[in-house]
Amino acid sequence: MQTRTQIAELGKVNFIEKLTSPFAIEADDAAILDNNRVIASDMLLEGVDFDLQYTPLEHLGYKAVTAAASNILAMNAMPKEITISLGLSARFSVEESEALYKGVHYALDQYGIRLIGGNTSASMSGLVIATTCIGTGDNIVRRSGAKTTDLLCITGNLGAAYMGMQLLEREKRAVGKSGIMPQLEGYNYLLRRQLQPTAPISVVKNLATEGVVPTAMIDITNGLASAMLSLCQSSQCGARIYLERIPIASEVFKLAQELQIDPVVAALNGGDDFELLFTVPLEHHKEILTMAGVDVIGHVVAVDEGAAMVTPDGSEIRLQSPDFVNQM
Amino acid sequence: MQTRTQIAELGKVNFIEKLTSPFAIEADDAAILDNNRVIASDMLLEGVDFDLQYTPLEHLGYKAVTAAASNILAMNAMPKEITISLGLSARFSVEESEALYKGVHYALDQYGIRLIGGNTSASMSGLVIATTCIGTGDNIVRRSGAKTTDLLCITGNLGAAYMGMQLLEREKRAVGKSGIMPQLEGYNYLLRRQLQPTAPISVVKNLATEGVVPTAMIDITNGLASAMLSLCQSSQCGARIYLERIPIASEVFKLAQELQIDPVVAALNGGDDFELLFTVPLEHHKEILTMAGVDVIGHVVAVDEGAAMVTPDGSEIRLQSPDFVNQM
Repeated sequence: MQTRTQIAELGKVNFIEKLTSPFAIEADDAAILDNNRVIASDMLLEGVDFDLQYTPLEHLGYKAVTAAASNILAMNAMPKEITISLGLSARFSVEESEALYKGVHYALDQYGIRLIGGNTSASMSGLVIATTCIGTGDNIVRRSGAKTTDLLCITGNLGAAYMGMQLLEREKRAVGKSGIMPQLEGYNYLLRRQLQPTAPISVVKNLATEGVVPTAMIDITNGLASAMLSLCQSSQCGARIYLERIPIASEVFKLAQELQIDPVVAALNGGDDFELLFTVPLEHHKEILTMAGVDVIGHVVAVDEGAAMVTPDGSEIRLQSPDFVNQM
Repeated sequence: MQTRTQIAELGKVNFIEKLTSPFAIEADDAAILDNNRVIASDMLLEGVDFDLQYTPLEHLGYKAVTAAASNILAMNAMPKEITISLGLSARFSVEESEALYKGVHYALDQYGIRLIGGNTSASMSGLVIATTCIGTGDNIVRRSGAKTTDLLCITGNLGAAYMGMQLLEREKRAVGKSGIMPQLEGYNYLLRRQLQPTAPISVVKNLATEGVVPTAMIDITNGLASAMLSLCQSSQCGARIYLERIPIASEVFKLAQELQIDPVVAALNGGDDFELLFTVPLEHHKEILTMAGVDVIGHVVAVDEGAAMVTPDGSEIRLQSPDFVNQM
């Protein structure tokens, strides 16, 4: 009988490495097409990346473009063109498809991205949205350039998208049981971060304006811990993140208490925050401190010191992410 | 209640036009990224574009790359880079994924394409393969440049992939009923054309070598009739195709007789032939006649003469394709 190794046994990161190793693909959010142009493909699948029960189609279209743009921004480049391929099931109506495209259109306008092509197919099962985004930048930044003493910076705040999903999942269960309309009041920010997240395009613009070229950059879509570990692996460095420096929105704390979830875990492992983690040389300290939407959360250390979070009492917790645990 | 228009009511071509019209996308096989660079995205969905019951995964990987390359060749450009995103269901084993990638790898080597990125996701339903291919060419050719008296040329031969699928479908039904192994002998060519089609990369190379720049070009993936009608629409021209000039492989005739299918219908509307239809000015008659893998099947006429096939007795049959019938 033929050997059948389940993908879960191998762990997703190892699995992708095994598949792509013959092709020598660099581990970055986008591929470098030429000196100043990058390209990234992404795919959103119904039932895995989104749930149509609580995801308005306009928001989904918007989010698909945000996810695509995020991959380009994470290379310190500006998204310029996009192709969008859709797999639509027969039960999809023209009006629903239009709603999806309305969200796409809105995001394209907002980010200044031009739709240049794509493909629409029938899907026998769920909705599939595949994007390829192309961007340009004078200073493309990879994951691999972080140096000891560099500052660790992040854009925006973390954990809100994850908590938004917890809220939607809870309300979905409640509605399923009772038929009562969902109670989502007081958590508008969390819902917006989950359903219509924006990519930090202004930060990449500001970095260029201020003449700050990060040494390494990665997007935070699987949580801060996973992004930090990937960056450390690519750059062969360690990191110290200071717990009290991680920006977490007040609604995250509020809902976390209600649901008895640790808000720091939401920030570290929650995912779906389309924010950026990047490193800059110490000499840019001043420009970074005054830059809107950016926080310094720690610094880069030598590889043998590992990646850890420092709590206010000075103790260190080694960073772990579900993805990386699987690899062992 | 909200209006729900089924996509089928509108017809696929109209539907895509309706969705994408606000974005002003040109109807070509690929989008023009800059003067000499084109980009095309494609998606293959399980149950729609392939059936894993009779599609070996190595062949499927190969075919996905062929389909991607075909879009680039149809712009008179050479495919150079590709991104491949996979949606894999949990029941997929690592070995199966490796088989898929082995086929991808083989095609990439053969076509000289570099894999530069992609994305692997879990899929709740079927296998999804999304590709984006980038190509370069000194003389990008669109669908819209055909002129009256131009020669109509095609690469390869038509109908074989469609007949290969008919054969596989027949054997699938037979195996389902009786459990007997499929009888596929004598039809190796048809099976290869369906399962492992190649894209006519050598023709695009030869055109460049001979200094022949087509006036219009399109790939033949939905059958010759559909391709011809699209080209006529984009170029605002008519066409005369001579029935006896359409190259059809002998195995197509053989199986068509067995299954009582009209082989000309297979060639005109069958689809899945990754061949090219293109037009060249009359003065290139000589270069085209001596070019391997190319046949002249007719010529371009004025738009008011319409697109028709001329039978050996001189009567004309108006070209129709299922896609275009839907539009009325």
